[in-house]
Amino acid sequence: MALSGGLLAETASLPEVPYPDGFRRWAHVASAVVAKKMGEANAEAEKEKAAAPHGLIHNLYANDLALEGYRTGHFPEGAVLIADWFILEETRGGLKQGPRKSVDVMVRDARRTETGGWAFENFDQNSRTQRNVGANAVTSCFKCHQFAGPEREFVFSTLRP
Amino acid sequence: MALSGGLLAETASLPEVPYPDGFRRWAHVASAVVAKKMGEANAEAEKEKAAAPHGLIHNLYANDLALEGYRTGHFPEGAVLIADWFILEETRGGLKQGPRKSVDVMVRDARRTETGGWAFENFDQNSRTQRNVGANAVTSCFKCHQFAGPEREFVFSTLRP
Repeated sequence: MALSGGLLAETASLPEVPYPDGFRRWAHVASAVVAKKMGEANAEAEKEKAAAPHGLIHNLYANDLALEGYRTGHFPEGAVLIADWFILEETRGGLKQGPRKSVDVMVRDARRTETGGWAFENFDQNSRTQRNVGANAVTSCFKCHQFAGPEREFVFSTLRP
Repeated sequence: MALSGGLLAETASLPEVPYPDGFRRWAHVASAVVAKKMGEANAEAEKEKAAAPHGLIHNLYANDLALEGYRTGHFPEGAVLIADWFILEETRGGLKQGPRKSVDVMVRDARRTETGGWAFENFDQNSRTQRNVGANAVTSCFKCHQFAGPEREFVFSTLRP
C-alpha cells in the first residue's frame, strides 16, 4: 500500500499527456475491428455495445520516433502511438467509419514505471481537452497493454509493410 | 461500336499505371470493412467470400495532390488515391488485417475520358507487376466508380479530419 501510494503520488506530479497535434498526417500503421472496446461483460460494456451495434474500428498512427521503435524493437523517449477509434456504421455492402469515439495516446516516457514506461491518455470524441484516463492509466490502459509483454515493450501492433 | 472501339484503341496506347511507390507513408484518408470486394452474386464472388469469410478491410491513402482534391473538390492531374486491401482475420475480440489482397490505384489522368478522367489499376497481393485491371478499367473499376458521380469527380471517399 505504501509503495503503491508512493507511485501514484509520483505519477500525479508528472505533466499531462499533450493532445497529439497533427497525428492524422503521421504514418498509418494498421487498422482493426473490435466488437467492443473493453473485453469485460459488465454494464459499461453493455452500454458501449448498444451505442455501437456494428462494433468499432481503430486506425493506428505512429510518429517518426515510434516508427524507429517498430523498426529496431526499441521505442525511444518521445515515441507516440495513436489509436483513432470510430463507431462503425452500416453502408451499402459493408461498414464505414461513423462518429469518432476517442483518440488513444501512448507516449514513451521512462518515468512512468508503473505503466511499462509509457504515458497513456484518451481524448473523448473530437475533444482536445476532455480526458478519460488521467491518473487511471494502470487500470484503464496498462491492465491490457501489459499482456503485450516487456519483450515487445508493451506494444501490441506491428508495422504493416 | 465505332466510338467505343476508338476509345479502347486510344486507351490501349496510353502508358501503364505505375506502381505507387511509397504510398504506405502517404496520408491515411479512412478505412472501411466490406463483406466482399465485388457486389455481385456470381461464382467469382462466392470464391472470394470463401477465401475471406470475415470479409475485407481497405485502408485509403492519398498523395499530396489528392489531398488538394479532397480540400478543393477538384483533383488535379497526378492526384493518386490508393485502396490497400487486406483479408480480415479473427483475433481475440475482433478482426485484424491478414494477408494483403491487392493494392488498388486511381490516378487523375484527363486523357482517360471513358473512365471519368482517372486511370485505374489493381496490383495483386504484394506484387508490383501482377496487374488485374489492365485494359479492363471500364468494367473492372468505373462500372462502380461512376456512381460517385461527376460532381464528386467519381471519388466515393471524403477525407476524415
